[in-house]
Amino acid sequence: MKNVGQAIYDLAGKLFPICRSITGNGFRQSLEMIREVVPEIQVFEVPSGTQVFDWTVPKEWNINGGWIKNKRGETIVDFKDCNLHVLGYSVPIHRMVSREELLEHVYTQPDQPDWIPYVTSYYKERWGFCMSERQKQTLNDDEYEVCIDSTLKEGSLTYGELILSGETEDEIFFSTYLCHPSMANNELSGPCVQTALIKYLQSLPSHRYTYRFVFIPETIGSITYLSRNLDMMQRHVKAGFVLSCVGDDRTYSYVSTKYENTLTDRVLENVLKFHYPNYIRYTFMKRASDERQYGSAGVDLPVCAFCRSKYHEYPEYHTSADNMDLISPKGLQGAYEVMVKVINALENNYYYLMTCKCEPQLGKRGLYPTVSQKGTYDAARVMQHFIAYADGKNDLIGISNILNIPIDELIPIKDKLMAHQLLSVK
Amino acid sequence: MKNVGQAIYDLAGKLFPICRSITGNGFRQSLEMIREVVPEIQVFEVPSGTQVFDWTVPKEWNINGGWIKNKRGETIVDFKDCNLHVLGYSVPIHRMVSREELLEHVYTQPDQPDWIPYVTSYYKERWGFCMSERQKQTLNDDEYEVCIDSTLKEGSLTYGELILSGETEDEIFFSTYLCHPSMANNELSGPCVQTALIKYLQSLPSHRYTYRFVFIPETIGSITYLSRNLDMMQRHVKAGFVLSCVGDDRTYSYVSTKYENTLTDRVLENVLKFHYPNYIRYTFMKRASDERQYGSAGVDLPVCAFCRSKYHEYPEYHTSADNMDLISPKGLQGAYEVMVKVINALENNYYYLMTCKCEPQLGKRGLYPTVSQKGTYDAARVMQHFIAYADGKNDLIGISNILNIPIDELIPIKDKLMAHQLLSVK
Amino acid sequence: MKNVGQAIYDLAGKLFPICRSITGNGFRQSLEMIREVVPEIQVFEVPSGTQVFDWTVPKEWNINGGWIKNKRGETIVDFKDCNLHVLGYSVPIHRMVSREELLEHVYTQPDQPDWIPYVTSYYKERWGFCMSERQKQTLNDDEYEVCIDSTLKEGSLTYGELILSGETEDEIFFSTYLCHPSMANNELSGPCVQTALIKYLQSLPSHRYTYRFVFIPETIGSITYLSRNLDMMQRHVKAGFVLSCVGDDRTYSYVSTKYENTLTDRVLENVLKFHYPNYIRYTFMKRASDERQYGSAGVDLPVCAFCRSKYHEYPEYHTSADNMDLISPKGLQGAYEVMVKVINALENNYYYLMTCKCEPQLGKRGLYPTVSQKGTYDAARVMQHFIAYADGKNDLIGISNILNIPIDELIPIKDKLMAHQLLSVK
Repeated sequence: MKNVGQAIYDLAGKLFPICRSITGNGFRQSLEMIREVVPEIQVFEVPSGTQVFDWTVPKEWNINGGWIKNKRGETIVDFKDCNLHVLGYSVPIHRMVSREELLEHVYTQPDQPDWIPYVTSYYKERWGFCMSERQKQTLNDDEYEVCIDSTLKEGSLTYGELILSGETEDEIFFSTYLCHPSMANNELSGPCVQTALIKYLQSLPSHRYTYRFVFIPETIGSITYLSRNLDMMQRHVKAGFVLSCVGDDRTYSYVSTKYENTLTDRVLENVLKFHYPNYIRYTFMKRASDERQYGSAGVDLPVCAFCRSKYHEYPEYHTSADNMDLISPKGLQGAYEVMVKVINALENNYYYLMTCKCEPQLGKRGLYPTVSQKGTYDAARVMQHFIAYADGKNDLIGISNILNIPIDELIPIKDKLMAHQLLSVK
Repeated sequence: MKNVGQAIYDLAGKLFPICRSITGNGFRQSLEMIREVVPEIQVFEVPSGTQVFDWTVPKEWNINGGWIKNKRGETIVDFKDCNLHVLGYSVPIHRMVSREELLEHVYTQPDQPDWIPYVTSYYKERWGFCMSERQKQTLNDDEYEVCIDSTLKEGSLTYGELILSGETEDEIFFSTYLCHPSMANNELSGPCVQTALIKYLQSLPSHRYTYRFVFIPETIGSITYLSRNLDMMQRHVKAGFVLSCVGDDRTYSYVSTKYENTLTDRVLENVLKFHYPNYIRYTFMKRASDERQYGSAGVDLPVCAFCRSKYHEYPEYHTSADNMDLISPKGLQGAYEVMVKVINALENNYYYLMTCKCEPQLGKRGLYPTVSQKGTYDAARVMQHFIAYADGKNDLIGISNILNIPIDELIPIKDKLMAHQLLSVK
Repeated sequence: MKNVGQAIYDLAGKLFPICRSITGNGFRQSLEMIREVVPEIQVFEVPSGTQVFDWTVPKEWNINGGWIKNKRGETIVDFKDCNLHVLGYSVPIHRMVSREELLEHVYTQPDQPDWIPYVTSYYKERWGFCMSERQKQTLNDDEYEVCIDSTLKEGSLTYGELILSGETEDEIFFSTYLCHPSMANNELSGPCVQTALIKYLQSLPSHRYTYRFVFIPETIGSITYLSRNLDMMQRHVKAGFVLSCVGDDRTYSYVSTKYENTLTDRVLENVLKFHYPNYIRYTFMKRASDERQYGSAGVDLPVCAFCRSKYHEYPEYHTSADNMDLISPKGLQGAYEVMVKVINALENNYYYLMTCKCEPQLGKRGLYPTVSQKGTYDAARVMQHFIAYADGKNDLIGISNILNIPIDELIPIKDKLMAHQLLSVK
């Protein structure tokens, strides 16, 4: 597992320079690069103008470049240097503008004066530039030449989907978004960790659950996807995770489902409390990514968001400082490992029931010390506790919570008891 | 709403001098003065001796006067000065008594030596006088002339009832008691605030609930009323409030229903936590007014008591110090406003359900900012939260509790969403 | 009740010298001594080799003596001095052994160097001696003569059972174990307190519940007993108690049932919180006696363990220091009194329902003060609270918990209300 983090990081590095948006060639190109790792991902195109629930798939946006020059022909900002410089979904423009007009179209983050903010205007047609507050302070000329070489036309919204069939139709759902331009934690970490999870599942000889993975643009993508798959998902999805901001080293966190009572919440809280006891738990009131749609009224899917430093909660969020230095192989690997533990917990999460009444005689099977004296019992105690709570009333997550012992350590115990025909699945 | 408090206070002032008891002309006269404000209130008379559940309607008590004089003809105490001086329901007497005999019939509150206590003996025939402890200390003569000019005869118990029919048969119940002589917080505040609430409801173009108001004598009155209306009330009453001690400025409080789980508890706690976060919550163990009967075994109506400084819990309670200086227009108005908020919350308390799947596109309806940047969303956040929890699982009180936003602020949001056909009532 | 503690203590003193084990004549002899007090106890013998669920009844162990001598014929340790000196279930041996070999068969408790530990090897055939760590340090000779005059042969496991039929088939179950050699708190206290409880129940004119008492060897005894009685017990047992370590003065404690939600937990917690508010509550994770079997998966009987200083939790546990000085008549009596209170609580634990609507008029029945003034009500308040909660929704334990008043004090109130036909059993 050691090299997984590096591989995830390298994939993110390859994807980083591309200018992505919720539609367009940047998204397509990025998805193709992921398909070089997982060719089985299917690509879907949904035409502009398609009605998706209360929304409409927008025009497709593409951009070749953009810049501001002063009258002396000196470049002030250039899309080539950083694709955050152009307002996301900006309409094309090429003309001289007064300083006053320009400033109305310049977006900065004044409280973080050295960083370029990430700003978009998907649903109202605007043109604009983003730059650091310090750079804005230098705009002292009367006139500037502005150029945004973009197109906003009928086209389509692109997304990728992969379904790995399991032994049952019950599904575990993973969703991540690939619509952000050059930012690393939010959001290349999610698609890249998800790609590694697909490889992990493909490496297993079999799995109980069917796994559904989507790579979508945020919000409009999840709405579009749900508009095409809602019935099926409401029937089958047992747990789901939005992977977002899973690349840094600072913490672990998660946004619970609306009522905090689903299998998703149970498994993720269980894994996190042993993996990183100081993890941060946000309520659904703090949702802001696709879990908004998955948990919306009438959709009601059991989907949470899993993060390391969560969107909105770290200083570099939605700025040029969210770059490849912010994430690390170790950070990505940590998120990957949590999700692998989640998958293993889910795969083993049955209601267990002992096959014998009363405690079994562990001693005759070599599972228990044969001399009884104060202090000699502790080693076998966990197995005895497992046995006591394997009464058909608790699933594995429940037993782990009661015993306060990680599922990873309970699985070998369960396997031993099954090997001795002492345990059955209810 | 500004002048409501003054109007309530003025009505209390008019009623204050009358000597009321659980039966008799004082109660009738007081009810008539309230009927000058709300003529629609119906008056009922229940004959003495009527069996009401385990109780019997007592004889009717009336009093013209009462005094103690010393042998020199000097008046020691006189009913004309304060109608608390005569023990409530005292039998008539007029003769010379020894100091020793008199003292056996004198009631004081030794720990509050300047105040005259309010004492009654409804269910055992006695004569007696109440006075301040200091006055009692001056009774040094050998003999006194005592006179109580009262009658205790077959008659009837009087109560008032008003039913304001709503769009449904579901009822909200208000109960207050009018049986106390000259005391202001306990208890002219309750009947006078209730009178204002009736005026408020009569001013509405329509209301969903049917409202049932009663003006009764305490305990025997609620038992009598229940003995005649229990079946109907058990079928229809969804929430109910005993209004008692609602006139001072010191705090807000309420006595919960027995199991603290009714609509009554939910709505009142919700309103109070925003109106006056430091309100005091008493359990049913602290009940002592008509909520005792409404919540008794076999009656089990969802009725709590709403108070400002609660009976038994403020020093002036049941003494001559509970006078018109203790209550204020502002204090009465505060209680009135809480009850108006309760009524509005109940009238709007439906289970709401979004009509679309996924979040609606608020932007196209002008309900959402169109440029997305860190920090621009907060204004629309409350509406988004409302939308998320309008999933058919929460009533308006529930949504208010989850969002920690007063119902008053949610009603306009709900109205906007309904106007856009985005919201329905489940 | 004063002399009960002394009688229990005296019985324990008579039993103390006998060397008991999970089978054999020591157990039989001890049971016979208890049958001198309660001749109705029935004795059962279960042959060695009988399959009992996952276990097999072991060979019967008997012992006549055992010692270690040095080459000079001086006795080092002797079973006659303390029957803990021989490893429980030790196989016979009589030969010279080297110091090294001997030390491999010597058990001590190094952290309690003056005490002889209690050690057994029921399910693997071994020989061994137990001694204090200090004594072990003196074993400096090259060779020793060791002798254990024991037999381990086909025989039987012995247990005692007494069923006291009540008015219903619903059962209360008591279990205690008689398999420990000369130790007092753990475990002569349990059988001796249980004997006194039988006498108590036999002294009652009648009882509602059927009471089932067993005197068994620990673990194998409860498994054996369950293998013969499980169906009946699952049908009838409503509450059950393992009596263990109920003889000292230091505290009270109990080990809850697995899910802490049974009648057993409710009644014992209720009684203990008034009897000894600082009692210690252990979760099922701390179980270690026969409650393990009664609460095991597939058995699931509502049985807790009741203790004063619990096994494993006091320093003298399973050593020679757990002697007749550790327990006391007062300590035993305290445990006895708790169990008597538990029995009385259970016998009276019905759902009560008032026969009248609204509060009854207590005054006309002499149950209430007739003059109403601040401060005069408190005496009748408990009865009023009882009446309010006697609404068919609470059993007596529930009412006691809500009112925070011991059941002992509620029973006379209930009796008064029943005598006045104001109360019925639901």
